[in-house]
Parts: sequence; structure tokens; C-alpha cells
Amino acid sequence: MDRRTFFKKAGVVSAGAFGTTALAAPAIAQENPKLNWRLASAFPQSLDILYSAGTSIADRVAEATDGNFQIQVYAGGEIVPPLQVLDAVRDDTVEMCYTPSYYYIGQDMTYGLGTDVPFGMNARLKNAWLYQGGGNELFDEFFAEKGLWGRPAGNTGAQMGGWFRKQINTVEDLKGLKMRIAGLAGQVMSKLGVTPQQISGGDVYSALERGSIDASEFVGPYDDLSLGLAKVAKYYYYPAWWEGAPTIHAFSNLERFNALPDSYKRILTDACDAVNLDTLAKYDARNPPALRQLVADGAELKPFSQEILDACFAASKEIFAQISSENDWFKRIYSSQEEFKKDAYLWMQLAEFSFDRYMMIQQRNGNL
Amino acid sequence: MDRRTFFKKAGVVSAGAFGTTALAAPAIAQENPKLNWRLASAFPQSLDILYSAGTSIADRVAEATDGNFQIQVYAGGEIVPPLQVLDAVRDDTVEMCYTPSYYYIGQDMTYGLGTDVPFGMNARLKNAWLYQGGGNELFDEFFAEKGLWGRPAGNTGAQMGGWFRKQINTVEDLKGLKMRIAGLAGQVMSKLGVTPQQISGGDVYSALERGSIDASEFVGPYDDLSLGLAKVAKYYYYPAWWEGAPTIHAFSNLERFNALPDSYKRILTDACDAVNLDTLAKYDARNPPALRQLVADGAELKPFSQEILDACFAASKEIFAQISSENDWFKRIYSSQEEFKKDAYLWMQLAEFSFDRYMMIQQRNGNL
Repeated sequence: MDRRTFFKKAGVVSAGAFGTTALAAPAIAQENPKLNWRLASAFPQSLDILYSAGTSIADRVAEATDGNFQIQVYAGGEIVPPLQVLDAVRDDTVEMCYTPSYYYIGQDMTYGLGTDVPFGMNARLKNAWLYQGGGNELFDEFFAEKGLWGRPAGNTGAQMGGWFRKQINTVEDLKGLKMRIAGLAGQVMSKLGVTPQQISGGDVYSALERGSIDASEFVGPYDDLSLGLAKVAKYYYYPAWWEGAPTIHAFSNLERFNALPDSYKRILTDACDAVNLDTLAKYDARNPPALRQLVADGAELKPFSQEILDACFAASKEIFAQISSENDWFKRIYSSQEEFKKDAYLWMQLAEFSFDRYMMIQQRNGNL
Repeated sequence: MDRRTFFKKAGVVSAGAFGTTALAAPAIAQENPKLNWRLASAFPQSLDILYSAGTSIADRVAEATDGNFQIQVYAGGEIVPPLQVLDAVRDDTVEMCYTPSYYYIGQDMTYGLGTDVPFGMNARLKNAWLYQGGGNELFDEFFAEKGLWGRPAGNTGAQMGGWFRKQINTVEDLKGLKMRIAGLAGQVMSKLGVTPQQISGGDVYSALERGSIDASEFVGPYDDLSLGLAKVAKYYYYPAWWEGAPTIHAFSNLERFNALPDSYKRILTDACDAVNLDTLAKYDARNPPALRQLVADGAELKPFSQEILDACFAASKEIFAQISSENDWFKRIYSSQEEFKKDAYLWMQLAEFSFDRYMMIQQRNGNL
């Protein structure tokens, strides 16, 4: 796009989005036009890794454009309610947001696949599918239909299954359980007799303490530490089979993104890619000491039993088949993921798995 | 740095590095000064994932700077011999190179830690240590002492252990084996009676065919496929315990990098981070079909035995202790890696390992 088209298109969207300096400056300076965007995060500042992913994108973009492309980041609820940031971007109330797309499965189940679905892929394979297995291209098309541009910009790695007041060994133990768990995972649990509950993170402790819920999933050691749940529900189960590698996206309004100069598109895209890598690194670096602290605080680590995993796996497959029969986009993207992971998990069993397994044995034996 | 300082400093290094257009243009245009750099890759174009990592960095930087910062990429040997590209950058013969630093352990053993050492970390943990565990900061300091700026810009994931003409079950079987294997891994193998050989990739097939070597390591399925080694050494062992996650760096001459405007430093750095993520994704996407092809061509997949891994692990520890006693930089960076991975591999055993293990079982059972 040439600069004339850029300013014309940008003007159609909203002239107010651009500072006046660039418009007043001579043509040669329009290489790096001045922009002031707002990014609404779905996360509070207390979830500091996820919140800071937004500010890290903004910092990188500002530095790469000599301060000409500024993105102001707002925490969830500051200017837009946390579960409505994607709508605000589509409606052009704010230029960008940072959110897991699966908060929007009520609008379209396909949004679930953008973040994670039960028994999906680990972070390595998720990224391989996104960047080199056609995943990002499929979502480019899907998001565009929704008036959005989106790019992966964060991942937590495999999450923990959450905090339980009593031990859960069999599928029978799940029946009647009131658990804070949302989305597709909640639907799977529901098939097994669990009553899914929607409770905000800040209310989980008191709900578990007074017994109005029996269990709650959250994130993983680092984010869970501040909630202090080990005191009220000490059994800390793993893994969150519903979140093997949740991707969080940065979204922009599609017209706004298309109106950017090519250089800004590239700068924003590379910043998102770098932050995707860096966010997972933050979790991997900070989860281990947090885990030690949680165990010191009384958490008892428990793996979900094979019986429970098998039942959840089967229930998930039923739900995926049902959604696929009703939603063409879901079917198309889910099929792409399934096709990719069959061979990917075969390859991962050789060099990767045998290397990791050996290193884990050395860790357990105190040899590292 | 302000623009005046930038041009002054850049001028000290070499005025010829800059095109004349920027210097002739009015001050306002110097925001994106014109630069023409050359990047010497250590890799031939036939290793297309590793070669294209260099061109991907160049493409991203050019697009992000409206074509003002151009990096011309040359394959290994085109303008600099493949094993001398780092020297060429330090000596300012070329502005950048793309190479694993461990090709330079003859100059300083610490370069080995930049890429990978025997029984290091998987790619997730390596990146966590680099970006969030102090790794990049340590190497910034080490590289600066060598007159270099470096940034991780690629990873192959855990490699395969290589091709063997006969089965290797015990440490006794290793004795007298002539194997193409270099660097620290070669030193470890040597302790166990192997005679390490240095042979270029193109000569491996004929060396195995005529029996002048008994085994050869290379990379993994995708890169190994073109060599056709299954026909002459069908036992394909895993994992390469010496390369759990080799990082390849992009390097620049330190003075050249320091003379860049801050915006270009950020653009180049983010491009490297994005390419680090993307290169691993390429391997993870392309290795699985290549593995199937290799097996169809007659490759027999074999895990190294516990006995062999244990002997190699013990020999590696001895070598690390020896080098640490002689080289302060090695000791400092190796200790940082060791400290990091103890807790990291503890945490990886919970959610990640149990999720992956379950998915691998489903893969084996044909349920994916």
C-alpha cells in the first residue's frame, strides 16, 4: 500500500486515531507515521505474566518505531470489561486487545480452537501447527470473517488440573462435584456428572473455604500461588487435560490493521511472535520455585488417574464430533489440528521424549 | 543515542557500510537510515531450514524498515568458509553471520554452552533459561568480550543420535567404533573408546558405504533424509544426548550493532526471536513426514540403551568438571544452566510430562 492509500484508508476508519504531527510533517517523514492505539487486556495486573505480555508488545513496537507507534495498555476492566475486549476491538471501540479467544465460544465454538481444547497439543506442537502447519493461515481467514486480525502472543504451557478438597480417584468420585471450570472443559466435566461453576478468580478461596464449591481450576503454580488455595483445597491435580498449551492472542480491528503501513504490520507481528516465545519462557522460569513454595504450603501433588483421563478423553471426542457436525469452521480447523498432531506425537516419542525422560530420571535421582 | 552520535560512531567503524542516499537526504529522513549489510551463513542452501533462518531475519528486517535496512545472505562458503564466519564478523569482514557458536570451542570452550552441551536441556527449558533465566544476559557479556553481539535465532529440537552400521547395545560395543561426531560429544565418546572423525556432510554416505567409518551423527529426519544413509547404515539411534536443543545464533560485530539506531536494534532483535520460534516450528512440522519416509526406506529406529546413556552421562560430567576448573566463563555459564535445570526438570515432570505421556499413549493406540 502506498502512503496516500494508507492515510486515505486510515481516515475512513477514524482520523482521530492518528496524531496530528505526522499529517502536518513533510511527506518524507510519513515513513513512521504517528499512531496512538489502546490495547484492552483481558487480564488484571495481578496476573502479571499475562498482563505484561501486552505491555511488552507495546514497548517493542514503540522502540522499533522510534516512539511513533504508541500502544497504551489497560488492564481488564479499566476501559472495557475483561470478557468483552474482543467485541470492543471488532466494534472499533479500542484498536487492540489481548485475550484468549476461547472466552468467546458463546459466539462461535471455533474461538475455542484458537486457545486450546481438551486433549490438544503441547506448546511445541501447537506452535508448529500455528506457524508451519497452516494454523495461523486458517485463523487469519476465520478472524477476518469476524472483522479481526489476530496473532499468537503468549502461552502458559500445560496448566495444572486445579485444587480439590478431597481426592478424586475414579469417575464415580467426579459425580456431583461442584467445580469452577468453564468452556469446553466444563462441558466435558458435565458429561461425567460434575456441576461446572463460573466464579471469578478473586472469589475462589472463599467459595472453597465455605464449601460452596469442591474444586477449582486456575492456571499453574506461579499464578495460583497468590490465591493461597493450598489452605482450603490441598489436593493439587495435574495435568489440565483441557489446557495442554493455551495460546493467548493479540487482536486488532481488521480495518485498522489493514490500514497500517507494511512496516508497522511487520513490526507488530514480530513483536507478537517474540512475546509468544517470551511469555512461555516466563512461565517455565517462574513455575518451578512457585511449585516448591506451594508444596511447602501444604499442597499435595496428585496425577489424574488413567480411568478419569480415559473417560474425559472419550467425552471430549463426543463433544468435538457434535460441534463439528454443526459448525463448518470448527470442523475445518479441528480436522487440521487432529491431522497434524497424529504424526507430530509419533515423532515426539523418539528423540524428544527419550531425551526428556532420561533427564527427568537424573533429576529424580539427584544427579543434575 | 541521538542521530548525530549514531552517524559519528557508524562513521568510525566504516562509512562505506551506509548507502549514500540517507546521508544526502534531509535530517528528518534519517529516522530509517539506509544500511546494506552482509550475513554469512554457516549452512549450505541444501540445509534449507537452517539456511532460510538467515534469509527470514533479513526479510523481516527489510520489511520492518521499509526496505532501508537490507541484509544480503550468503550460504556457507560463498564469501566466507562456513567454519570461519564468526571470525569474519569479529574482524568486521562481514557485518553478520548465522552459526552455532559451538563450532568455535577450539577458541573458547564457553562457545559450546551457547549452542548445546551433552545432557543439556530441551528446547522449552533452553529458551526459558536464555530469555528468563539470565542466559542471554550472560552471553551478552561473554560475546561482548569477544567483540560480538549475538542473539538466539533458531533451534532444531532434540536431534537423532545418528546412523550406525551395526547395533550398539553396550558400552563394550562402542569400543573401537569410528564415528563422525565432533566437539564435546566427540570428547565424551572418545572417553568410551570411540574414535571421533571429522567428515563433511556430503562425504558421509561414501565413508559409511566403504566402511571407513562405522557411524555418523547428523541432524534429524528432515535434514538426514537427503543423505540417504538408511541404505548404508540402517540403525537410526536416538536421542542425540549431546544435542537436546541446539540453539543457533545470529551474530553481529559488536561495534556495528552498537552503532545502529535503537529502533534497528529492536527490529533486528525481535526478528531473531521470531525466527527462533519459527525455525523450531519448521523442524517440528517437517520431521514427522521425513521420519515416515526414512522408515519406509529401511531405517530401523533404536533407542540408546540405559547403560550407554549412563556411561555417557558420567563421562560428560567428568569433562564439564575438567573444563570448569580451567575456564572461568565456562564455569559461570555452565553453573547457571545446571542450577536452572534442576528445578525446571522437576516442574516438567508434572503437568507437561503427564499431558504428553497421555497423548503419546493415545497416538500409539491409534486414538488421535
